[in-house]
Amino acid sequence: MAKFSDILLDRRTIRKYSSENIDDKLLNELLVMGCRASTTGNMQVYSIIITRDEQMKKELSPLHFNQKMITEAPVALTFCADFNRFNKWCLLRNAEPGYDNFLSFFTGAIDALLVAQTVCIAAESKGLGICYLGTTTYNAHKIINLLKLPKGVIPVTTVTIGWPSEKPEQVDRLPLEAVIHKETYSDYSVEDIEKYYKAKEERKDSQQFVNENNKETLAQVFTDVRYKKEDNVYFSKILLEVLKDQGFMEQ
Amino acid sequence: MAKFSDILLDRRTIRKYSSENIDDKLLNELLVMGCRASTTGNMQVYSIIITRDEQMKKELSPLHFNQKMITEAPVALTFCADFNRFNKWCLLRNAEPGYDNFLSFFTGAIDALLVAQTVCIAAESKGLGICYLGTTTYNAHKIINLLKLPKGVIPVTTVTIGWPSEKPEQVDRLPLEAVIHKETYSDYSVEDIEKYYKAKEERKDSQQFVNENNKETLAQVFTDVRYKKEDNVYFSKILLEVLKDQGFMEQ
Repeated sequence: MAKFSDILLDRRTIRKYSSENIDDKLLNELLVMGCRASTTGNMQVYSIIITRDEQMKKELSPLHFNQKMITEAPVALTFCADFNRFNKWCLLRNAEPGYDNFLSFFTGAIDALLVAQTVCIAAESKGLGICYLGTTTYNAHKIINLLKLPKGVIPVTTVTIGWPSEKPEQVDRLPLEAVIHKETYSDYSVEDIEKYYKAKEERKDSQQFVNENNKETLAQVFTDVRYKKEDNVYFSKILLEVLKDQGFMEQ
Repeated sequence: MAKFSDILLDRRTIRKYSSENIDDKLLNELLVMGCRASTTGNMQVYSIIITRDEQMKKELSPLHFNQKMITEAPVALTFCADFNRFNKWCLLRNAEPGYDNFLSFFTGAIDALLVAQTVCIAAESKGLGICYLGTTTYNAHKIINLLKLPKGVIPVTTVTIGWPSEKPEQVDRLPLEAVIHKETYSDYSVEDIEKYYKAKEERKDSQQFVNENNKETLAQVFTDVRYKKEDNVYFSKILLEVLKDQGFMEQ
């Protein structure tokens, strides 16, 4: 068995899966481990929607911009901030819930993300591969509709899980010193930025990325192609409306 | 060595630590593992502030409502959504960053939380104990001030880490079926809520909790004592202002 630290250190995101299924027993094990993650005041203000059905995958796929992992992985999990269940319990117990506000949404989102990451690490420790889809917050409104999420519930992230049929090269990370700060934040000088991003910019795949996209710099691939201002502004508006519609922006 | 699944299943939050330090080498190992967590587009839009200094702990402590873990643990880590570093890189590379909006904040928050949870699991696999402090978002403005976080950076959660000097009883969790949904969200009937919360309500510690707080029900301990509407509303306003002040609410 691989050492656990190696599992964490050698991991890579897996986007191609074999056709082998994940049986219910194994999936349940992963979810039980996930639910042992820390949760605010032991409220467990999250829910997990399991997508296995082929038709549901087909309908979910365009909401994640047709990333093929949704249809090709045996399981997709949508992790949601969820105060609906907790509120219902409060109301049944003569208690007045005060969780229709932004802080509560964020509390639920934290809870959901800690569970998500724990499920992912549990899955990887069993030899499964995972991929996070950042598209969940972009199309939260449509996902709410498809998954029939009631008021008080907001999808936060989606993870596809399956048995790997690829072993991609491990991607780079910034040097650790680039992302840690001792005691207080030491803001980055021009020299710091040059130093920390040098290896990333010099990678062959980065340079290929720049060329393929007809850009001058790797940073421009992010700002002009992958994560554009106009998209961010558009989806920010939608996400804030979703917060309101789902009942998290009362004052 | 404990099986990894046992580490995840048997975990408990640790609030009491021995006086033994965590050496830099071990802490760095944990952080390197953490930074292998999935990150949106490999942008790594997070930073980690390490608090070890006694004076800093003393100043940080009241911002976490004097929870003693801050001063008693050898290390506190504040995980932040951080677009400051990425923006600086873009500007140096003739690229116009468009990340001054809510979606980008939430992207950074997701990144930060996945790293946080990975660091926590790595720590627990080494025999360390961890505790999440949910107070970070309450006092984000004051933490920003103390840790000198520039625009583009928002603290999302704080974790204390140390060698356990207690082994508390494991707390309860709702049955798995209470938090998962197959294909679509199946909303909770009165019977569901009764069933799922029964074991929690019948626990001795829950009943003690109700009595100590002079309440009728466990739910009232949450709504009237621990997570009150007036506090949630107050801290929601502050957090939304923090988002604005740190440059994440431009349209």
